[in-house]
Amino acid sequence: MNIIEIIDKKRRGLTHSHEEIATLVRMMESGKAHDYQISAWLMAVCIQGLNMDETTWLTQAFVDSGKKIDLSEAGGVVVDKHSTGGVGDKTTLALIPMLASAGVKVAKLSGRGLGFTGGTIDKLEAIPGFKTSLSGIEFVEQIQKLGMAISSQTADLAPADGKMYALRDVTATVASIPLIAASVISKKIAAGADVIVLDIKYGSGAFMGTLEEAKDLAFTCREVGKRLGKSISTVISAMNQPLGYAIGHSLEVIEIINLLKGQGPQDLEDLCVRLGGVALIGAGRFDSLEDAENTLRAELHDGTALAKFKTLIQAQRGDVAILEDFSLLPQPDRVLMVPSPQSGYIAEIDALEVAKAAKLVGAGRLTKDCPINLGVGVVLRKKVGDAVKEGETLVELHAGDKDHWEALEVLKKAFHFSLEPVTASPLIEEVLIGDVWQKPSVKV
Amino acid sequence: MNIIEIIDKKRRGLTHSHEEIATLVRMMESGKAHDYQISAWLMAVCIQGLNMDETTWLTQAFVDSGKKIDLSEAGGVVVDKHSTGGVGDKTTLALIPMLASAGVKVAKLSGRGLGFTGGTIDKLEAIPGFKTSLSGIEFVEQIQKLGMAISSQTADLAPADGKMYALRDVTATVASIPLIAASVISKKIAAGADVIVLDIKYGSGAFMGTLEEAKDLAFTCREVGKRLGKSISTVISAMNQPLGYAIGHSLEVIEIINLLKGQGPQDLEDLCVRLGGVALIGAGRFDSLEDAENTLRAELHDGTALAKFKTLIQAQRGDVAILEDFSLLPQPDRVLMVPSPQSGYIAEIDALEVAKAAKLVGAGRLTKDCPINLGVGVVLRKKVGDAVKEGETLVELHAGDKDHWEALEVLKKAFHFSLEPVTASPLIEEVLIGDVWQKPSVKV
Repeated sequence: MNIIEIIDKKRRGLTHSHEEIATLVRMMESGKAHDYQISAWLMAVCIQGLNMDETTWLTQAFVDSGKKIDLSEAGGVVVDKHSTGGVGDKTTLALIPMLASAGVKVAKLSGRGLGFTGGTIDKLEAIPGFKTSLSGIEFVEQIQKLGMAISSQTADLAPADGKMYALRDVTATVASIPLIAASVISKKIAAGADVIVLDIKYGSGAFMGTLEEAKDLAFTCREVGKRLGKSISTVISAMNQPLGYAIGHSLEVIEIINLLKGQGPQDLEDLCVRLGGVALIGAGRFDSLEDAENTLRAELHDGTALAKFKTLIQAQRGDVAILEDFSLLPQPDRVLMVPSPQSGYIAEIDALEVAKAAKLVGAGRLTKDCPINLGVGVVLRKKVGDAVKEGETLVELHAGDKDHWEALEVLKKAFHFSLEPVTASPLIEEVLIGDVWQKPSVKV
Repeated sequence: MNIIEIIDKKRRGLTHSHEEIATLVRMMESGKAHDYQISAWLMAVCIQGLNMDETTWLTQAFVDSGKKIDLSEAGGVVVDKHSTGGVGDKTTLALIPMLASAGVKVAKLSGRGLGFTGGTIDKLEAIPGFKTSLSGIEFVEQIQKLGMAISSQTADLAPADGKMYALRDVTATVASIPLIAASVISKKIAAGADVIVLDIKYGSGAFMGTLEEAKDLAFTCREVGKRLGKSISTVISAMNQPLGYAIGHSLEVIEIINLLKGQGPQDLEDLCVRLGGVALIGAGRFDSLEDAENTLRAELHDGTALAKFKTLIQAQRGDVAILEDFSLLPQPDRVLMVPSPQSGYIAEIDALEVAKAAKLVGAGRLTKDCPINLGVGVVLRKKVGDAVKEGETLVELHAGDKDHWEALEVLKKAFHFSLEPVTASPLIEEVLIGDVWQKPSVKV
């Protein structure tokens, strides 16, 4: 079957065979299928869909296109965590020491930020000296010794996914649940961990607009993982307002350190504890989510997780003095306060608009090679549900030497007010562990 | 609005504005939109469709992308005819002299064959000396003097359609009624005729598989033409078996000459007369289809159309001796007879398989620059409904010096038999003149 016949089949809404999916990926890699043919197929998939078999075969073909990391030498159950991306989402930084303290190994490969979501690797580079690029051997050895390691993801894991994603990005074919699932799961499988926890975001600041889509993606990821022999648990969390208060690289590192000192924002602590709890259950360390979460929450408040984070920074050659002296982190040139135009309650903070403002002052990239300013960003002073008086500071803009007026305007528009008290919608909607949806009894 | 937003809109099944369609075509032409972006949009269109407004705007954008032929100097009502392509479809060759004899002007720009359908320009090149490439001035002057001219279509008419079609051909996005309509109508509008007649084929040997699809295409073409100020009439004809008996360049020229001598196959005569009748009504020469058809049929039998064809060949420097001596046309190297494997009735002749056999012996192109053999092809001896005895010749294969065994095998498989008498389905289904479907009272 040639590439045109394969494309035509999906155009007509038919189902591919394993061989057809494998052929398509092989032809894309060898250049026998042209970009314009792959993009036509991608659009057909976006509209007609892929079933669970096809999604699994695509995931497998992505995995087979590159190298696979062997973590068998790491010793013990290894956990990996992935988020579909959100504004102010810095949970990975805290989860690595939290999980390692709780006795599971953590092997984390992360990317750089692109678009509106920050990259964990970029955030770590705000820590002077922190080495974000470990060799394969260094990575495994550090997990063995320290129980955790983080390194920037190399292009040799699932390279076919990388190639296809680059096309999706410029052809309006990102928004497809099977394509997102194959992309996420293939990289996680190639990265070699035993237990995978996914944080699937939905809402105005996320890829998945609705809870239903997020559940669909969670179920697809879980099922594809199962078919490929990998245990995947998912947490579905809201991304209607930024997570925590800080958006920007230095600013998010500071917020994480505060969290590890037991002084973090409640929503950030709740999500880290929930994600960590789900991971510990997946790894077989606990039977009850409540017990797992209590252990993790205790670590945040008794200094255990902070101490573990210190050993991670040391191991990867970062300056641990930043834990006590935030002025050692990259700084903004100026901090501007945005006063509230009215009294009332915060009804909504548009996460995407806040991210746009941060990007405008230099915290985000336009293309893969753009430099970013690690010292700038946004700090919310108020979140949804908070009362505010006219003239009181709503939000701080940490700006660089670039023009900041447009960012200020965008930031102002992100806030919506109500004269009546407002209750924020729950942060964590549902958790999928094993095959059952668990509506957490205690909503956080 | 950028190209990704335009693609995304169609992915989601939304309707484009006039500005979006014009922008997309402009960006494709300037290279600002990449092939992989256009092909993603094409696939979205194939699945989500274009409404009549969008199809009209696309057609207009194609027309505006190139030059328009001005036929105002041709003097009088100028007719153009187009077929969506079929096997053995040689009606254009006869219609030019038939219509010119009936007193309307005929301005015909034709293409070369690609895929399984023969090109009129290739067929004319079987006539020694025939000049198929006229300049714009020569073309108009000949119509003025002689009432008719045919020339090969240049790339400067609706070039944006040419570019888009090249992409559709390799991305499984040909099969879209709005895209086909925009492609056909834009070239016809740029070609400048006042009256356009379309022969829309359906069946196993045509782009449109079913009568319903053919009617949909006919209606779309008619409506788009109307919105752009052009009168378009359509005839819907079956393409389940080849039209006439001859497939191949010299062979089809011979069949046309026989038709113009009043000795053509009945189905070919019927279709030429119907298409011509519809054109004459469109041009205002007749009020009744029956009167128009009677006039045209008379021309075929009293030598008028043949004489007119002779003046066309003379004007375009072809050798008129071919009208009496077919051996002056390109010849095959050998003629092989295929005997019937059984006695009975011909139930079906697969047009596509017959075309494949003709292509295998050299009558068709694989790519645009392939040379073709004008002397080879296929001559049917039996058509659907005919009785046949075991061993009697079913079909002749006119072969060149290439290996012909595969072609023979394909040809044998094209014939299906019945032990019971078979009635062929009607050749002409419906005619759309003005806004009403006319089921012809006399089916042919």
